[in-house]
Amino acid sequence: MAVALKAPLAHEVIPVAGIELGSTEAGIRKANRRDLVVLRLAPGTTVAGVFTLNRFCAAPVELCKEHLASGAPIRALVINTGNANAGTGAAGRAHVEQTCKELAQMLGIRPEQVLPFSTGVILEPLPIARLLAGLPAAVAALRADHWLEAAQGIMTTDTIPKGASEVVEIKGTKSGGRVTITGIAKGSGMIHPNMATMLGFIACDAKIAQPILNALVKRIADRTFNRICVDGDTSTNDSFILMASGAAALEPFDSADDERLPALEEALVRVAKKLAQAIVRDGEGATKFIEVHVEEGKTEAECLAVAQAVAKSPLVKTAFFASDPNLGRILAAVGYSGISDLDFGRVKLYLGDVLVAVNGELAPGYREEDGQRVMQSSEITVRIGLGRGAASQSLWTCDLSHAYVTINAEYRT
Amino acid sequence: MAVALKAPLAHEVIPVAGIELGSTEAGIRKANRRDLVVLRLAPGTTVAGVFTLNRFCAAPVELCKEHLASGAPIRALVINTGNANAGTGAAGRAHVEQTCKELAQMLGIRPEQVLPFSTGVILEPLPIARLLAGLPAAVAALRADHWLEAAQGIMTTDTIPKGASEVVEIKGTKSGGRVTITGIAKGSGMIHPNMATMLGFIACDAKIAQPILNALVKRIADRTFNRICVDGDTSTNDSFILMASGAAALEPFDSADDERLPALEEALVRVAKKLAQAIVRDGEGATKFIEVHVEEGKTEAECLAVAQAVAKSPLVKTAFFASDPNLGRILAAVGYSGISDLDFGRVKLYLGDVLVAVNGELAPGYREEDGQRVMQSSEITVRIGLGRGAASQSLWTCDLSHAYVTINAEYRT
Repeated sequence: MAVALKAPLAHEVIPVAGIELGSTEAGIRKANRRDLVVLRLAPGTTVAGVFTLNRFCAAPVELCKEHLASGAPIRALVINTGNANAGTGAAGRAHVEQTCKELAQMLGIRPEQVLPFSTGVILEPLPIARLLAGLPAAVAALRADHWLEAAQGIMTTDTIPKGASEVVEIKGTKSGGRVTITGIAKGSGMIHPNMATMLGFIACDAKIAQPILNALVKRIADRTFNRICVDGDTSTNDSFILMASGAAALEPFDSADDERLPALEEALVRVAKKLAQAIVRDGEGATKFIEVHVEEGKTEAECLAVAQAVAKSPLVKTAFFASDPNLGRILAAVGYSGISDLDFGRVKLYLGDVLVAVNGELAPGYREEDGQRVMQSSEITVRIGLGRGAASQSLWTCDLSHAYVTINAEYRT
Repeated sequence: MAVALKAPLAHEVIPVAGIELGSTEAGIRKANRRDLVVLRLAPGTTVAGVFTLNRFCAAPVELCKEHLASGAPIRALVINTGNANAGTGAAGRAHVEQTCKELAQMLGIRPEQVLPFSTGVILEPLPIARLLAGLPAAVAALRADHWLEAAQGIMTTDTIPKGASEVVEIKGTKSGGRVTITGIAKGSGMIHPNMATMLGFIACDAKIAQPILNALVKRIADRTFNRICVDGDTSTNDSFILMASGAAALEPFDSADDERLPALEEALVRVAKKLAQAIVRDGEGATKFIEVHVEEGKTEAECLAVAQAVAKSPLVKTAFFASDPNLGRILAAVGYSGISDLDFGRVKLYLGDVLVAVNGELAPGYREEDGQRVMQSSEITVRIGLGRGAASQSLWTCDLSHAYVTINAEYRT
């Protein structure tokens, strides 16, 4: 069902020196399913993260934030699927603490050096015994070339594992060299800024000082994982983690003014964008991949609000599913997106390369068959001009199909 | 597909002295379909309205507001379905002006004494010739007992005509007597506060001064039509009109302090609430009618924000469709509803009479089969306690089913 998305081949998710991954079938919710993943990070690796803004956030998210804030050097990540350990109260908290403690013992580190992640059903007790019993096998499997298995091990309703890599040549007067970036992600439903039911883990082998990494993770999330929408629901467990092992030869990035930083940041954004778009392409029931681009706004914030209103509208999404150029629905969503002084007489709408509406009404040359042609494509760009400024924003979404209803009606069965 | 909703019988929508209705099959979009309705109001009738907040509002909505603001006594309404006359620019404006002018000529009144309404497909030219050609037949059919035909004549994707009446005995030291209230409404998809793709017309035979009626229409909308949500889309054409013919014997309501006013207002709210809930019960693809009640909030606004987040969530709505007590999805929606200082440790969730979650986690005595039992009912109340105040708010919504996708994917075909 995924839109133009293939599983990466093992050699396409390139090992990052200093990062090892191991996974196993712990039987957390279902048998015969890779559902427990451990990452071991070499000493000296810096780690930064951004997390769900949902007030009902899960026990692992809370502990993750505490461990990152403690300043302890992070040396391991542990991720389970099948259960989100959210809405699980004191028991959920005890379970995630125990998980960190047992993994720390196995790896000879302290519990606060472990970041825990869970994804899956909310409001059910974490099957902690099965999780703990699976840890030794996951640790035994730790290897640098296990990224693809890890990508498989964090899937829930995903139909395809998501991974991406890039090797980038960094140049500069300071010291240049090759940086390897690899990331994996999961997510398919409950996808909306900020953030989605998604987990994203990206590692590189550059050495990046903590303050630089903290700023990078936020900027990258804002341009990628916070620009995707499947169904408008924000989950309890979303996390995006950026790791820098420092194993590469080039000198550390320890200043925000480092002239080499933009090239590294753009490469990280490219990997993150591939993963973010892969989540939308694998959106629950998705048959179309849609970029909503809003331009000529007064501010980026209002462009984003318009893009989100369009991307969230069930009426717009079902029209895309049906390849029906019922484009008034898009204009209606623009109209209720919250810009109280929007002059509709200046609004333009393009569907792909076709000008559909201008001055708030149907464009004179528009022909239904042109709209139809664009709608039948599986990759569609909607471009909306607000006619009131120079700001612009894009986000990526998918259509709303029968399969979405089926998947979400039957999620727990 | 509608949830516990039957078409009213002709004698259940009671004539209101001073109001006549006529309708016809004008063939505006489809043949053999009652799609044009005229209301004639006796001299002395006061009229007030509330309209969509969508910035992309339709030509008839703009003209309606102008005619109401002009102070001219409103003497007629004209409503067409099949085409919303929205996003139609100068031509759409000319069409609606022409409609008012021709109807005014037939009725011997001025164009600004006519309120026009359109509902249906957006962004397509109004077939004005067919509309105008239908007016004489609609006018010829004007009768006081044609409310049911009018209810049928304003339907679009509605499967059932919506009408309600109440005869209320008003008492007071001033003068008492019987007031007859009758209303009709349409709406099924694109339903969300403020307001829905809905039209609502309620008339009573009390005499109500314009300032009192203006205040009443807003208060009634806020308690009824602005408390329903099918899919979260706000349309371009929503209108709710309140008419008071003054034909009843009792003295006018011309002061906001009139001791008789609360009884009249409550009766009007009961009729409006029946119509509003009928819209949800006939929601596109609806199989369940759900009341979301949020209590213990600091403010009514935050209660409403929580209720809306729950009512809009596609994940919550598909879980209801599946009768799956996947109640974490409700808590997740509460979590992202925007209360930044919400303490989840104080949140309670009831499904019907079953306590599901307390202190932000699964209630100790909760059993899945109890949740399942409530979910299988076609009328469900979700009660959420925020544990931070005394404010409360309710709204009414429905589930998200395969039929919703089918209806909206095929709307224009």
